[in-house]
Amino acid sequence: MKVGFIGFGEVASTLSEGLLAHGVEVSTFLEGRSQRSVELAKSSGVNLLNSLTELTDSSDILLSAVVPAEAVSVAKKVGGGFKGVYVDLNNVSPGTVKEAFSYILNGKTVDGAIMGGIKNGLGTPIVASGEFAENFAELNQYGMNIEVIGPEVGQASGLKMLRSAYTKGVSALLFESFHAAYQMGVDETLLRYLTLSEGSHFPESANSRLTSSAYHSQRRAQEMEEVVKFLSEYTDPVINRATCEFFQSLPDKTGPMPKRLAKYGEVFQKVDKNRL
Amino acid sequence: MKVGFIGFGEVASTLSEGLLAHGVEVSTFLEGRSQRSVELAKSSGVNLLNSLTELTDSSDILLSAVVPAEAVSVAKKVGGGFKGVYVDLNNVSPGTVKEAFSYILNGKTVDGAIMGGIKNGLGTPIVASGEFAENFAELNQYGMNIEVIGPEVGQASGLKMLRSAYTKGVSALLFESFHAAYQMGVDETLLRYLTLSEGSHFPESANSRLTSSAYHSQRRAQEMEEVVKFLSEYTDPVINRATCEFFQSLPDKTGPMPKRLAKYGEVFQKVDKNRL
Repeated sequence: MKVGFIGFGEVASTLSEGLLAHGVEVSTFLEGRSQRSVELAKSSGVNLLNSLTELTDSSDILLSAVVPAEAVSVAKKVGGGFKGVYVDLNNVSPGTVKEAFSYILNGKTVDGAIMGGIKNGLGTPIVASGEFAENFAELNQYGMNIEVIGPEVGQASGLKMLRSAYTKGVSALLFESFHAAYQMGVDETLLRYLTLSEGSHFPESANSRLTSSAYHSQRRAQEMEEVVKFLSEYTDPVINRATCEFFQSLPDKTGPMPKRLAKYGEVFQKVDKNRL
Repeated sequence: MKVGFIGFGEVASTLSEGLLAHGVEVSTFLEGRSQRSVELAKSSGVNLLNSLTELTDSSDILLSAVVPAEAVSVAKKVGGGFKGVYVDLNNVSPGTVKEAFSYILNGKTVDGAIMGGIKNGLGTPIVASGEFAENFAELNQYGMNIEVIGPEVGQASGLKMLRSAYTKGVSALLFESFHAAYQMGVDETLLRYLTLSEGSHFPESANSRLTSSAYHSQRRAQEMEEVVKFLSEYTDPVINRATCEFFQSLPDKTGPMPKRLAKYGEVFQKVDKNRL
C-alpha cells in the first residue's frame, strides 16, 4: 500500500508517522511547499519526491491535506493523470470538495473529514463518503480510524460543517444570554440553573465556548458565511444566519461581561486581560 | 403565618397542600374564579373566603399565581390596601412584574419565579428577588425551597425568561441542523458525533426538544416575542430574534424530518403520526 500526501502540515505529519509504523510506504513532494512543511516532511521519514507528478505516479491513495484555499488548485494540478484513490481531507465545504473533484477526471474520489483533534494520532476519527469511500477505509487495516458514513460526496464535509455550525450556534446563544444575564446581575445563577438542565459539563463547556467566541469572532463569522451558503441548499438557515451576524458584530458587544465571567475559569481571565 | 393565594390552579394547589401540612394557615377566595380553581380550592382544605378584600385583610403573605394575562389586573385590584408581602409568582416578564407592582402601593413586593416542575411539590425550586425577597423566603421554615437571588425586582422573572430562551434557542438550532442533516442523509451520524461533544444526555434531550418544538411552535414564537422585547433593554438580541422568527415559520418546514427522526425515540413517533 503506497500513500501519498499532498501538503505536509500537522495532519499529514501525524498520520504519516502512524502509517509508517504500520509498514505503509508513505511519500510526499517538496516542490513549492512552505518551509515548515518541508521541515516536517524531512523529519518524518517519508519518501521525499520532487514533484506532484512523481507523487501521483507512485501512490495508490493520495490524501489532500492542504490549507483550505488550496483544496481546489491542488486537485486541478493532479487533474486527469491519477487513477488511484483521491481523498480530500481538507476543512472545506461540500461545494468546494465537489469543485475540487471536478478536476479529478479519472481518480476514485473520496470526501473525507477529520472529526477529532489530530493530536489523537492515527486513531483520530475520520468520516468518509462517496462511491469509493470503502477504498480509503482500507487504511483501517493500518491503524486508521475511518468511518464510511454514506455513498455521496459532500456528506462527510457537510457533517463536519453541521457539527461545527451547531457548536458555533450554541456559543453565540450562550454569549447573548450571559451578556444580558451579567447586566441583570444573574449570570452566576443562570449558569447554575442551566447546569441542572444541560448537564454537569455545562460550566466548563460554556466557559470554553464563550472564551473562544470572544477570541475568534471574526474567523467564526467567516466560517459561518460558508455554512449559510451551504445550508441554504437545504433550508432557510434562520438561526445559522443569525449566528453569522452575531459573530460579525461581536467585537462591539463584549462590554463588561468578560471581567465578571472571569471567575468561571482561568481561561476567561485571558479574555479580560486582552480587553476584547 | 397566614398565606393567601390569589388564583388557585396547579401551583397554588400544590404549594398549599405542603404549607398546610407544615401548619401554615392558608386561604384563598372564590369570587370570580374558574370552576376548576373553585374545585381545587374546595378539595384542598384551605380557608375559603368570599372576596379578594377578605383575603388581603387576613394574609401576611399574598401569593399571586394566576394566568399570565391576569397578573397586572389582580395587582390592580389588591391596590394600596395591602401592607404585607406581595409575591408575583406568575410566568411573566420583568416588565409585567414591574407594571403589576406599580399598583401595590403599600405592600412589600417580591418578584418570584418557579424554576422546576411544580410536580416536585413544596420543594420545587423558586427564585425570588427584590428588597423584600427575604420576607418571602421565611416560608422556607415551612418546607418551601425559595432562593433569594438578588435585590431587584425583575431579576427572578428575568432569570426564568433567560433560561427558557436559552432552551428554546438550542431547540431551534437543533431543528435547523437536523433538518438539513436529514436531507443530506447524515442525521444519525450527526446525532452520534454531537453526543461526543455535548454529553451522553444529548440524544434524549435533543429528541425531547425537537418534539416539543414541533408541537408547540406557535406558543414558543409568542413567548420569544416577549423575550426579545425584554432582552432588547440589555443587548441587540440577534440570536433570540432569530429563534422567534424560526418558531414563527416552523410549521412550513417540518417536511419529511419527523418520519426519519422517529427512530430516535417513541416520542417522536407521535409527531410523525400527527403529520405536523
